[in-house]
Amino acid sequence: MNYKVVFSILGKTLLIEAGLMLIPLIVGIGYQENNYLAFLIPILSLFIIGFPLSRLKSKDNTLYAKEGFVIVALSWILLSLFGAIPFVINGVIPNYIDAFFETVSGFTTTGASILSGAQIEGMDKGLLFWRLFTHWIGGMGILVFVLAILPANNAGVMHVFRSEAPGPSVDKLATKLKFTARILYGIYIVLTLIQAVLLYCGGLSVLDSFLMSFSTAGTGGFGILGDSAISYSSYIQIVLSVFMFLFALNFNVYYLLLIGNVSKIFALEEVRAFFIMVLVAVIAIAINLYTAMANVYANFGQALKHSFFQVTAISSTTGLSSTDFNLWPNLSKGILLVLMVIGACGGSTGGGIKMSRMMILCKSSTADFKKLVHPRAVIYSHLDGEPISPSTERNVRTYFVVWVLIVILATLLLSLDPHIKDSLFSGFSATISCIGNIGPGFDLVGPMCNYMGFSYFSKIILSLVMLIGRLEIFPMLILFIPRTWRKG
Amino acid sequence: MNYKVVFSILGKTLLIEAGLMLIPLIVGIGYQENNYLAFLIPILSLFIIGFPLSRLKSKDNTLYAKEGFVIVALSWILLSLFGAIPFVINGVIPNYIDAFFETVSGFTTTGASILSGAQIEGMDKGLLFWRLFTHWIGGMGILVFVLAILPANNAGVMHVFRSEAPGPSVDKLATKLKFTARILYGIYIVLTLIQAVLLYCGGLSVLDSFLMSFSTAGTGGFGILGDSAISYSSYIQIVLSVFMFLFALNFNVYYLLLIGNVSKIFALEEVRAFFIMVLVAVIAIAINLYTAMANVYANFGQALKHSFFQVTAISSTTGLSSTDFNLWPNLSKGILLVLMVIGACGGSTGGGIKMSRMMILCKSSTADFKKLVHPRAVIYSHLDGEPISPSTERNVRTYFVVWVLIVILATLLLSLDPHIKDSLFSGFSATISCIGNIGPGFDLVGPMCNYMGFSYFSKIILSLVMLIGRLEIFPMLILFIPRTWRKG
Repeated sequence: MNYKVVFSILGKTLLIEAGLMLIPLIVGIGYQENNYLAFLIPILSLFIIGFPLSRLKSKDNTLYAKEGFVIVALSWILLSLFGAIPFVINGVIPNYIDAFFETVSGFTTTGASILSGAQIEGMDKGLLFWRLFTHWIGGMGILVFVLAILPANNAGVMHVFRSEAPGPSVDKLATKLKFTARILYGIYIVLTLIQAVLLYCGGLSVLDSFLMSFSTAGTGGFGILGDSAISYSSYIQIVLSVFMFLFALNFNVYYLLLIGNVSKIFALEEVRAFFIMVLVAVIAIAINLYTAMANVYANFGQALKHSFFQVTAISSTTGLSSTDFNLWPNLSKGILLVLMVIGACGGSTGGGIKMSRMMILCKSSTADFKKLVHPRAVIYSHLDGEPISPSTERNVRTYFVVWVLIVILATLLLSLDPHIKDSLFSGFSATISCIGNIGPGFDLVGPMCNYMGFSYFSKIILSLVMLIGRLEIFPMLILFIPRTWRKG
Repeated sequence: MNYKVVFSILGKTLLIEAGLMLIPLIVGIGYQENNYLAFLIPILSLFIIGFPLSRLKSKDNTLYAKEGFVIVALSWILLSLFGAIPFVINGVIPNYIDAFFETVSGFTTTGASILSGAQIEGMDKGLLFWRLFTHWIGGMGILVFVLAILPANNAGVMHVFRSEAPGPSVDKLATKLKFTARILYGIYIVLTLIQAVLLYCGGLSVLDSFLMSFSTAGTGGFGILGDSAISYSSYIQIVLSVFMFLFALNFNVYYLLLIGNVSKIFALEEVRAFFIMVLVAVIAIAINLYTAMANVYANFGQALKHSFFQVTAISSTTGLSSTDFNLWPNLSKGILLVLMVIGACGGSTGGGIKMSRMMILCKSSTADFKKLVHPRAVIYSHLDGEPISPSTERNVRTYFVVWVLIVILATLLLSLDPHIKDSLFSGFSATISCIGNIGPGFDLVGPMCNYMGFSYFSKIILSLVMLIGRLEIFPMLILFIPRTWRKG
């Protein structure tokens, strides 16, 4: 482990967080809130710790995969540890572990909250801005930002980029890393702005438009109202739905749009599959709601609107809700659960296992099955016209197995919590929801509930699960291997 | 598809079933029950259809994997279709689909029943014998029996054997197939007899001793009392527990014992891991019960006994119950759910994914993870001292992925059933229970419930899931591929 390089990059990350925290401080001052210490103290701490670290120089600047993973994992943990401080000093979340949970949930774009509706609506504007801003920062990944603005001093940063940028396939976007990072951020900012304008046209205030735009751009799901998105107008709900869908797409789509290569967009198998999945889910749930809950959704249009909102909210892993989907019939809940597991496209800001991984899993399993039946046949799986390499297949399958093992382990650990003692399913759906960075689950973690009732032990487990999900498992796991910390 | 060879072997299988059905007929006559038509009609039908089929001769006797799979899948379906007839004619299960479900549950050694306690206790002895006998027949696999007594005319029967005999590793037992099949049946019969004698010593009647021995030898779980195993004495419960454990072990253990190679038994990693898993689960659940349910399990011995019974019953995939484990605390239920998924050792009569597969999954994922961190390291996974071949790894991972997909699909299909409309978890646990050939699950399919309330659609889905689980997925799936049915 090359500690000097690791510390130096971590230091730079802390400095960036200090800079980003100035924005909610300014918002707070603009709203004449006098709770400015809530931001000043962490900003100063970040600067005092970050500055000397960032100045560390190492003779050997080479970064291996190991260092890359460690940097990613530690920087997310540090960002959350410092990011939680404003909530505690402000007093809205007096307990530090609760504040840490809320901040991890923000940065990982999960959107699972320990706050009640009244607490959210009564919050200082500066702090509310910070809460939603964490989604926007976490959506694209702060380290991608670091890469975009700092001089890339060696090729090893690729390892950082690959484990930090959302999804497995961003590295295809453009060959130059720095260029890629800037393009990604450009697309991200433009889409966020367009959505904010559209929300403003729907009657939201300027601040609220930006906040809800942050929430969906990062596919996070924190709301600014006590009831998530239930009381918004249909116009606002539809704008949110459409943008949740757009942010769940592989950013390749926008890149190809930028360079005018529209025909290639339709050739992206992952995007096509995601589109078909959303379409099928929306229609199936709408029919299910209309037939099984005629007392609630009196006309098909209502059923369709809520189905569209909830399917985009869940499959993009945003997790906003336009209605209490925990009351929906079994089939609809089952479909939502499957969408939670699959998640968004690779190369989007969304979470979950990712559509591309699911496709590789299904394609390679089908090929294996065919080989079993016709042992002498030569069968290759393809994605986007190219053969899937054996090492990609292997990685995806390893990912899936480890994912399942983590879900099982976390569910068992949560089952110790007296808060959900009568519902094993609540713990299971909380785990699925947190590892997929969605937010709400079913039963005791349904859209009308929050995570406050869990024990501190469970909150720490769920915080780890959110980080594991956002960082795509391996960077977090590596922290627990003693060998990682050896010198040299 | 070489139809003539396939039909000929299917014909022989039907003749064997006719022969096996003579035993319950004789038992019924012995108990002076006059419902003998319930067996005579299916016996005659089996003979009339099976005899001409078995006489079919083909010029080309070669069997490929495809034919092997088709034979296995069709023979289990046919056996169940005919095996259900006695229940209908006798009148205890008037509806044929219900009877088919019960028979599939019997042959696949699942033990999920649609009968109430009163119906089971009031059943004719001949029919009760048949119900439990299906477990014993299905436990080892009737085609293994066919192989053991018929002349093996070509090497292609290996394909049949491998997909029919329980677990992935029986082929290691002995090089000669016929010899292996006979040894397996020898061990099976001797263990069944020993258990029957021990049960008889505990006060059960001769018939009941045999029936409960059938139930556990096949790791089935049908009971002969309305309350499964709750009202048995502690002695009987402990005998059952010990034998459930023994039948869940890889039969290699008994083979090695036979040839006197005891040291090699302790070298079997799968058996060691299974033993440790059972031990840890028994202790964890006992402590959990003793601390969380002090009102029910007043002393630690009681908690330990029920924990031992339930852990062996679930991990062997038998599914008997000594208490209503659906009332247990979350952690205990969570552990049982994990045991359901893992299942027994390969090469045993038990179901589930199998311990050996889980070990290969975990080992290869760990190796992949290490490779990610140390890209240039050379890392191999081993099982029983031998490196795990890439193709084995591949097969196991494919198996796991397809297993998960089937569980998701079946859960969604079950969620349409109004019977479990308020509990998505009931459908999930019914699927896990049926694909693992266990029997009881949680909530609406808990040990004190039965499967009668499900719709016929759900019962057919669950029957397929039981067959998919027992035949280790691929032989059943192949039936749904049009290409399988092409001539030539």
